Amino acid sequence: MNLLEERICKEGKVLNDEILKVDSFINHQVDPYLMKEIGKEFANHFKDKGITKVATIESSGIAPALMTALEMNVPLVIMKKSPSKVLKTDLYGTEVVSFTKGTSYELTIAKSHICEEDHILIIDDFLANGEASTGAIRLIRKANATIAGLGILIEKSFQPGRQKLEEAKIEVYSLARIKSLNGGSIQFIN
Amino acid sequence: MNLLEERICKEGKVLNDEILKVDSFINHQVDPYLMKEIGKEFANHFKDKGITKVATIESSGIAPALMTALEMNVPLVIMKKSPSKVLKTDLYGTEVVSFTKGTSYELTIAKSHICEEDHILIIDDFLANGEASTGAIRLIRKANATIAGLGILIEKSFQPGRQKLEEAKIEVYSLARIKSLNGGSIQFIN
Repeated sequence: MNLLEERICKEGKVLNDEILKVDSFINHQVDPYLMKEIGKEFANHFKDKGITKVATIESSGIAPALMTALEMNVPLVIMKKSPSKVLKTDLYGTEVVSFTKGTSYELTIAKSHICEEDHILIIDDFLANGEASTGAIRLIRKANATIAGLGILIEKSFQPGRQKLEEAKIEVYSLARIKSLNGGSIQFIN
Repeated sequence: MNLLEERICKEGKVLNDEILKVDSFINHQVDPYLMKEIGKEFANHFKDKGITKVATIESSGIAPALMTALEMNVPLVIMKKSPSKVLKTDLYGTEVVSFTKGTSYELTIAKSHICEEDHILIIDDFLANGEASTGAIRLIRKANATIAGLGILIEKSFQPGRQKLEEAKIEVYSLARIKSLNGGSIQFIN
Protein backbone atom coordinates (compact mmCIF):
# COMPACT_ATOMS: atom_id res chain seq x y z
CA MET A 1 0.00 0.00 0.00
CA ASN A 2 1.87 3.02 -1.28
CA LEU A 3 0.16 5.51 1.02
CA LEU A 4 1.55 3.79 4.12
CA GLU A 5 5.02 3.24 2.65
CA GLU A 6 5.22 6.90 1.66
CA ARG A 7 4.26 7.94 5.16
CA ILE A 8 6.81 5.58 6.70
CA CYS A 9 9.52 7.09 4.48
CA LYS A 10 8.47 10.60 5.43
CA GLU A 11 7.85 10.25 9.17
CA GLY A 12 9.19 6.88 10.32
CA LYS A 13 12.28 7.04 12.52
CA VAL A 14 14.83 4.24 12.42
CA LEU A 15 16.14 3.89 15.98
CA ASN A 16 18.46 0.99 15.20
CA ASP A 17 18.67 -1.98 12.81
CA GLU A 18 15.55 -3.54 14.36
CA ILE A 19 13.32 -0.70 15.60
CA LEU A 20 11.22 1.59 13.45
CA LYS A 21 9.30 4.29 15.33
CA VAL A 22 5.99 5.32 13.75
CA ASP A 23 4.47 7.09 16.71
CA SER A 24 3.61 10.28 14.86
CA PHE A 25 0.90 8.61 12.73
CA ILE A 26 0.15 5.08 14.01
CA ASN A 27 1.10 4.30 17.61
CA HIS A 28 0.82 7.42 19.71
CA GLN A 29 -0.46 10.16 17.47
CA VAL A 30 -2.85 8.57 14.96
CA ASP A 31 -3.84 9.86 11.52
CA PRO A 32 -7.56 8.99 11.23
CA TYR A 33 -7.62 9.47 7.45
CA LEU A 34 -4.73 7.02 6.98
CA MET A 35 -6.52 4.53 9.25
CA LYS A 36 -9.66 4.85 7.14
CA GLU A 37 -7.70 4.11 3.96
CA ILE A 38 -6.00 1.15 5.64
CA GLY A 39 -9.42 -0.15 6.73
CA LYS A 40 -10.68 0.07 3.15
CA GLU A 41 -7.63 -1.78 1.86
CA PHE A 42 -7.99 -4.67 4.33
CA ALA A 43 -11.75 -4.84 3.80
CA ASN A 44 -11.24 -5.03 0.05
CA HIS A 45 -8.51 -7.66 0.25
CA PHE A 46 -10.48 -9.96 2.58
CA LYS A 47 -13.96 -9.21 1.23
CA ASP A 48 -14.75 -12.69 -0.07
CA LYS A 49 -13.55 -14.61 2.96
CA GLY A 50 -16.82 -14.80 4.91
CA ILE A 51 -15.44 -12.87 7.86
CA THR A 52 -17.78 -12.54 10.86
CA LYS A 53 -15.55 -10.46 13.14
CA VAL A 54 -12.36 -8.43 13.17
CA ALA A 55 -10.08 -8.96 16.18
CA THR A 56 -7.05 -7.06 17.44
CA ILE A 57 -4.79 -6.88 20.46
CA GLU A 58 -4.99 -3.72 22.57
CA SER A 59 -3.99 -1.05 22.03
CA SER A 60 -2.03 -0.05 18.89
CA GLY A 61 -4.10 -2.24 16.60
CA ILE A 62 -7.46 -0.78 17.65
CA ALA A 63 -7.52 2.16 15.22
CA PRO A 64 -6.88 0.24 11.96
CA ALA A 65 -8.97 -2.72 13.18
CA LEU A 66 -11.95 -0.47 13.93
CA MET A 67 -11.82 1.06 10.46
CA THR A 68 -11.57 -2.40 8.88
CA ALA A 69 -14.55 -3.65 10.90
CA LEU A 70 -16.55 -0.56 9.92
CA GLU A 71 -15.81 -1.13 6.23
CA MET A 72 -16.70 -4.84 6.50
CA ASN A 73 -19.82 -4.15 8.57
CA VAL A 74 -18.85 -6.64 11.29
CA PRO A 75 -18.06 -6.21 15.01
CA LEU A 76 -14.57 -5.60 16.35
CA VAL A 77 -13.29 -7.63 19.29
CA ILE A 78 -10.38 -6.26 21.31
CA MET A 79 -8.25 -8.96 22.91
CA LYS A 80 -7.10 -7.73 26.30
CA LYS A 81 -3.59 -7.92 27.64
CA SER A 82 -4.73 -8.65 31.16
CA PRO A 83 -8.16 -9.44 32.53
CA SER A 84 -9.89 -6.34 33.84
CA LYS A 85 -11.58 -6.39 37.23
CA VAL A 86 -14.99 -6.43 35.60
CA LEU A 87 -14.17 -9.27 33.23
CA LYS A 88 -13.00 -11.89 35.65
CA THR A 89 -14.97 -14.93 34.65
CA ASP A 90 -15.73 -16.78 31.44
CA LEU A 91 -12.55 -15.89 29.59
CA TYR A 92 -10.30 -17.73 27.20
CA GLY A 93 -6.69 -16.93 27.97
CA THR A 94 -3.21 -17.68 26.66
CA GLU A 95 0.23 -16.54 27.73
CA VAL A 96 2.21 -14.47 25.25
CA VAL A 97 5.95 -14.41 25.87
CA SER A 98 8.16 -11.81 24.24
CA PHE A 99 11.61 -13.29 24.19
CA THR A 100 13.22 -10.09 22.89
CA LYS A 101 11.62 -7.90 25.55
CA GLY A 102 11.86 -10.54 28.27
CA THR A 103 8.24 -9.97 29.24
CA SER A 104 5.02 -11.93 29.18
CA TYR A 105 1.35 -11.19 29.51
CA GLU A 106 -1.97 -12.99 29.55
CA LEU A 107 -4.01 -12.39 26.40
CA THR A 108 -7.74 -12.86 26.98
CA ILE A 109 -11.09 -12.78 25.25
CA ALA A 110 -14.51 -13.17 26.80
CA LYS A 111 -16.25 -16.41 25.85
CA SER A 112 -19.39 -14.41 25.14
CA HIS A 113 -17.74 -12.54 22.25
CA ILE A 114 -16.42 -15.45 20.19
CA CYS A 115 -17.97 -18.73 19.12
CA GLU A 116 -17.18 -21.66 16.86
CA GLU A 117 -19.18 -20.14 13.99
CA ASP A 118 -16.82 -17.14 13.91
CA HIS A 119 -14.35 -16.69 11.05
CA ILE A 120 -11.97 -14.02 12.23
CA LEU A 121 -9.68 -11.50 10.58
CA ILE A 122 -6.86 -10.43 12.92
CA ILE A 123 -5.50 -6.90 12.43
CA ASP A 124 -2.32 -5.63 14.09
CA ASP A 125 0.10 -2.77 13.60
CA PHE A 126 3.40 -4.72 13.53
CA LEU A 127 4.52 -8.22 12.67
CA ALA A 128 8.04 -9.00 13.86
CA ASN A 129 8.71 -12.29 15.64
CA GLY A 130 5.05 -13.24 15.55
CA GLU A 131 4.64 -13.73 19.29
CA ALA A 132 1.52 -11.59 19.60
CA SER A 133 -0.01 -12.92 16.37
CA THR A 134 0.51 -16.56 17.24
CA GLY A 135 -0.93 -15.81 20.70
CA ALA A 136 -4.04 -14.31 19.10
CA ILE A 137 -4.37 -17.39 16.88
CA ARG A 138 -4.07 -19.76 19.86
CA LEU A 139 -6.76 -17.77 21.66
CA ILE A 140 -9.18 -17.85 18.72
CA ARG A 141 -8.64 -21.59 18.30
CA LYS A 142 -9.45 -22.16 21.98
CA ALA A 143 -12.94 -20.95 21.08
CA ASN A 144 -12.98 -23.34 18.09
CA ALA A 145 -13.39 -20.31 15.84
CA THR A 146 -11.45 -20.15 12.57
CA ILE A 147 -8.96 -17.61 11.24
CA ALA A 148 -9.53 -15.93 7.90
CA GLY A 149 -6.14 -14.27 7.86
CA LEU A 150 -3.91 -11.66 9.36
CA GLY A 151 -3.80 -8.04 8.21
CA ILE A 152 -0.62 -6.23 9.22
CA LEU A 153 0.34 -2.59 8.74
CA ILE A 154 4.11 -2.99 8.99
CA GLU A 155 5.92 -6.29 8.62
CA LYS A 156 9.56 -6.50 9.61
CA SER A 157 10.33 -9.14 7.03
CA PHE A 158 13.85 -9.66 8.38
CA GLN A 159 12.30 -11.21 11.49
CA PRO A 160 10.63 -14.63 11.49
CA GLY A 161 6.94 -13.75 12.15
CA ARG A 162 5.68 -14.26 8.59
CA GLN A 163 7.49 -17.55 8.19
CA LYS A 164 5.98 -18.93 11.40
CA LEU A 165 2.49 -17.92 10.31
CA GLU A 166 2.86 -19.29 6.79
CA GLU A 167 4.06 -22.58 8.25
CA ALA A 168 0.83 -22.57 10.27
CA LYS A 169 -1.12 -22.02 6.98
CA ILE A 170 -2.28 -18.52 7.95
CA GLU A 171 -2.58 -15.95 5.17
CA VAL A 172 -0.62 -12.82 6.03
CA TYR A 173 -1.41 -9.59 4.16
CA SER A 174 1.03 -6.82 5.09
CA LEU A 175 0.65 -3.30 3.72
CA ALA A 176 4.33 -2.40 4.14
CA ARG A 177 7.02 -5.10 4.15
CA ILE A 178 10.38 -3.94 5.41
CA LYS A 179 13.37 -5.85 4.13
CA SER A 180 15.94 -3.99 6.18
CA LEU A 181 16.52 -1.06 8.51
CA ASN A 182 20.30 -1.41 8.39
CA GLY A 183 22.32 1.77 8.58
CA GLY A 184 19.25 3.89 9.27
CA SER A 185 17.80 3.28 5.81
CA ILE A 186 14.32 1.82 5.27
CA GLN A 187 14.26 -0.78 2.48
CA PHE A 188 10.91 -2.24 1.40
CA ILE A 189 10.12 -5.54 -0.32
CA ASN A 190 8.35 -4.55 -3.51
CA MET B 1 -27.86 10.59 22.41
CA ASN B 2 -30.79 8.19 22.14
CA LEU B 3 -28.91 5.61 20.10
CA LEU B 4 -26.43 5.00 22.91
CA GLU B 5 -29.05 5.05 25.67
CA GLU B 6 -31.16 2.53 23.76
CA ARG B 7 -28.14 0.27 23.37
CA ILE B 8 -27.29 0.57 27.06
CA CYS B 9 -30.86 -0.41 27.96
CA LYS B 10 -30.74 -3.37 25.59
CA GLU B 11 -27.24 -4.74 26.25
CA GLY B 12 -25.81 -3.04 29.33
CA LYS B 13 -25.45 -5.26 32.38
CA VAL B 14 -25.80 -3.79 35.85
CA LEU B 15 -23.34 -5.69 38.04
CA ASN B 16 -24.10 -3.73 41.21
CA ASP B 17 -25.21 -0.23 42.22
CA GLU B 18 -21.99 1.26 40.81
CA ILE B 19 -20.88 -0.90 37.89
CA LEU B 20 -22.43 -1.01 34.44
CA LYS B 21 -20.88 -3.49 32.01
CA VAL B 22 -21.01 -2.44 28.35
CA ASP B 23 -18.44 -4.85 27.00
CA SER B 24 -20.61 -6.22 24.22
CA PHE B 25 -20.58 -2.94 22.23
CA ILE B 26 -18.04 -0.48 23.72
CA ASN B 27 -15.23 -1.95 25.83
CA HIS B 28 -14.40 -5.43 24.61
CA GLN B 29 -16.56 -6.09 21.59
CA VAL B 30 -17.02 -2.79 19.74
CA ASP B 31 -19.83 -1.79 17.38
CA PRO B 32 -18.07 0.25 14.65
CA TYR B 33 -21.31 1.78 13.38
CA LEU B 34 -22.24 3.03 16.87
CA MET B 35 -18.72 4.48 17.21
CA LYS B 36 -19.14 6.30 13.91
CA GLU B 37 -22.43 7.84 15.05
CA ILE B 38 -20.85 8.83 18.38
CA GLY B 39 -17.96 10.45 16.49
CA LYS B 40 -20.41 12.46 14.39
CA GLU B 41 -22.29 13.60 17.49
CA PHE B 42 -19.13 14.81 19.28
CA ALA B 43 -17.79 16.44 16.12
CA ASN B 44 -21.05 18.29 15.64
CA HIS B 45 -21.28 19.41 19.26
CA PHE B 46 -17.72 20.75 19.40
CA LYS B 47 -17.47 21.93 15.77
CA ASP B 48 -17.07 25.65 16.52
CA LYS B 49 -14.48 25.31 19.26
CA GLY B 50 -11.29 25.55 17.18
CA ILE B 51 -10.14 22.07 18.13
CA THR B 52 -6.68 21.08 16.83
CA LYS B 53 -6.48 17.54 18.23
CA VAL B 54 -8.59 14.85 19.87
CA ALA B 55 -6.98 13.05 22.81
CA THR B 56 -7.95 9.91 24.70
CA ILE B 57 -6.53 7.53 27.27
CA GLU B 58 -5.74 4.01 26.11
CA SER B 59 -7.50 1.81 25.46
CA SER B 60 -11.34 1.91 25.75
CA GLY B 61 -11.56 5.50 24.52
CA ILE B 62 -9.63 4.89 21.29
CA ALA B 63 -12.56 3.76 19.13
CA PRO B 64 -14.92 6.70 19.77
CA ALA B 65 -12.00 9.16 19.84
CA LEU B 66 -10.74 7.95 16.45
CA MET B 67 -14.17 8.40 14.88
CA THR B 68 -14.46 11.88 16.40
CA ALA B 69 -11.02 12.85 15.08
CA LEU B 70 -11.92 11.51 11.63
CA GLU B 71 -15.12 13.57 11.55
CA MET B 72 -13.28 16.70 12.75
CA ASN B 73 -10.36 16.13 10.37
CA VAL B 74 -7.75 16.46 13.12
CA PRO B 75 -5.17 14.01 14.53
CA LEU B 76 -5.86 11.72 17.47
CA VAL B 77 -3.35 11.48 20.32
CA ILE B 78 -3.47 8.43 22.57
CA MET B 79 -2.24 9.11 26.10
CA LYS B 80 -0.36 6.06 27.31
CA LYS B 81 -0.81 4.41 30.67
CA SER B 82 2.87 3.64 31.02
CA PRO B 83 5.84 4.72 28.97
CA SER B 84 6.72 2.15 26.34
CA LYS B 85 10.28 1.03 25.84
CA VAL B 86 10.56 2.97 22.61
CA LEU B 87 9.14 6.18 24.03
CA LYS B 88 11.40 6.71 26.98
CA THR B 89 12.48 10.30 26.64
CA ASP B 90 10.78 13.61 26.05
CA LEU B 91 7.50 12.78 27.74
CA TYR B 92 5.08 14.72 29.89
CA GLY B 93 3.82 12.50 32.69
CA THR B 94 1.38 12.63 35.58
CA GLU B 95 0.32 10.05 38.15
CA VAL B 96 -3.31 8.98 38.09
CA VAL B 97 -4.53 7.42 41.32
CA SER B 98 -7.74 5.45 41.43
CA PHE B 99 -8.87 5.56 45.04
CA THR B 100 -11.73 3.12 44.45
CA LYS B 101 -9.55 0.54 42.72
CA GLY B 102 -6.53 1.22 44.93
CA THR B 103 -4.27 1.44 41.89
CA SER B 104 -2.19 4.09 40.20
CA TYR B 105 -0.46 4.52 36.87
CA GLU B 106 1.68 7.03 35.02
CA LEU B 107 -0.18 8.76 32.22
CA THR B 108 2.16 10.06 29.52
CA ILE B 109 2.22 11.95 26.27
CA ALA B 110 5.22 12.61 24.03
CA LYS B 111 6.27 16.26 23.97
CA SER B 112 6.48 16.03 20.19
CA HIS B 113 2.71 15.41 19.87
CA ILE B 114 1.37 18.35 21.85
CA CYS B 115 2.25 22.03 21.94
CA GLU B 116 0.98 25.25 23.44
CA GLU B 117 -0.97 26.11 20.28
CA ASP B 118 -3.10 22.97 20.71
CA HIS B 119 -6.74 23.21 21.77
CA ILE B 120 -7.73 19.70 22.72
CA LEU B 121 -10.96 17.74 22.91
CA ILE B 122 -10.66 14.81 25.34
CA ILE B 123 -12.85 11.76 24.58
CA ASP B 124 -13.34 8.89 27.01
CA ASP B 125 -15.80 6.04 27.48
CA PHE B 126 -16.73 6.56 31.14
CA LEU B 127 -16.81 9.45 33.59
CA ALA B 128 -17.21 8.35 37.20
CA ASN B 129 -14.96 9.89 39.85
CA GLY B 130 -13.05 11.89 37.28
CA GLU B 131 -9.61 10.57 38.17
CA ALA B 132 -8.61 9.70 34.61
CA SER B 133 -10.15 12.86 33.14
CA THR B 134 -8.49 15.20 35.63
CA GLY B 135 -5.21 13.36 34.98
CA ALA B 136 -5.61 13.94 31.23
CA ILE B 137 -6.28 17.63 31.90
CA ARG B 138 -3.18 17.96 34.11
CA LEU B 139 -1.11 16.34 31.38
CA ILE B 140 -2.41 18.66 28.64
CA ARG B 141 -1.78 21.68 30.84
CA LYS B 142 1.82 20.59 31.43
CA ALA B 143 2.29 21.21 27.71
CA ASN B 144 0.61 24.63 28.07
CA ALA B 145 -2.05 23.44 25.63
CA THR B 146 -5.71 24.29 26.28
CA ILE B 147 -8.76 22.10 26.74
CA ALA B 148 -11.81 22.59 24.53
CA GLY B 149 -13.95 20.18 26.50
CA LEU B 150 -14.56 16.61 27.46
CA GLY B 151 -16.76 14.22 25.45
CA ILE B 152 -17.95 11.22 27.43
CA LEU B 153 -19.98 8.24 26.30
CA ILE B 154 -21.38 7.20 29.67
CA GLU B 155 -21.43 9.46 32.72
CA LYS B 156 -22.23 7.94 36.09
CA SER B 157 -23.85 11.11 37.36
CA PHE B 158 -24.18 9.72 40.88
CA GLN B 159 -20.38 9.90 41.18
CA PRO B 160 -18.50 13.22 41.52
CA GLY B 161 -16.57 13.38 38.21
CA ARG B 162 -18.77 15.95 36.46
CA GLN B 163 -18.86 18.22 39.49
CA LYS B 164 -15.05 18.23 39.80
CA LEU B 165 -14.69 19.09 36.11
CA GLU B 166 -17.33 21.81 36.17
CA GLU B 167 -15.59 23.36 39.17
CA ALA B 168 -12.45 23.41 37.04
CA LYS B 169 -14.45 25.21 34.29
CA ILE B 170 -14.26 22.28 31.85
CA GLU B 171 -17.26 21.70 29.57
CA VAL B 172 -18.46 18.11 29.87
CA TYR B 173 -20.69 16.71 27.13
CA SER B 174 -21.94 13.22 28.00
CA LEU B 175 -24.04 11.20 25.59
CA ALA B 176 -25.67 9.07 28.28
CA ARG B 177 -26.01 10.35 31.86
CA ILE B 178 -26.89 7.71 34.38
CA LYS B 179 -28.71 8.91 37.48
CA SER B 180 -28.79 5.56 39.22
CA LEU B 181 -28.08 1.85 38.85
CA ASN B 182 -29.80 0.97 42.12
CA GLY B 183 -31.60 -2.33 42.26
CA GLY B 184 -30.30 -3.39 38.86
CA SER B 185 -32.32 -0.71 37.05
CA ILE B 186 -30.69 1.87 34.75
CA GLN B 187 -32.14 5.36 35.26
CA PHE B 188 -31.00 8.16 32.93
CA ILE B 189 -30.99 11.91 33.47
CA ASN B 190 -33.16 13.31 30.69
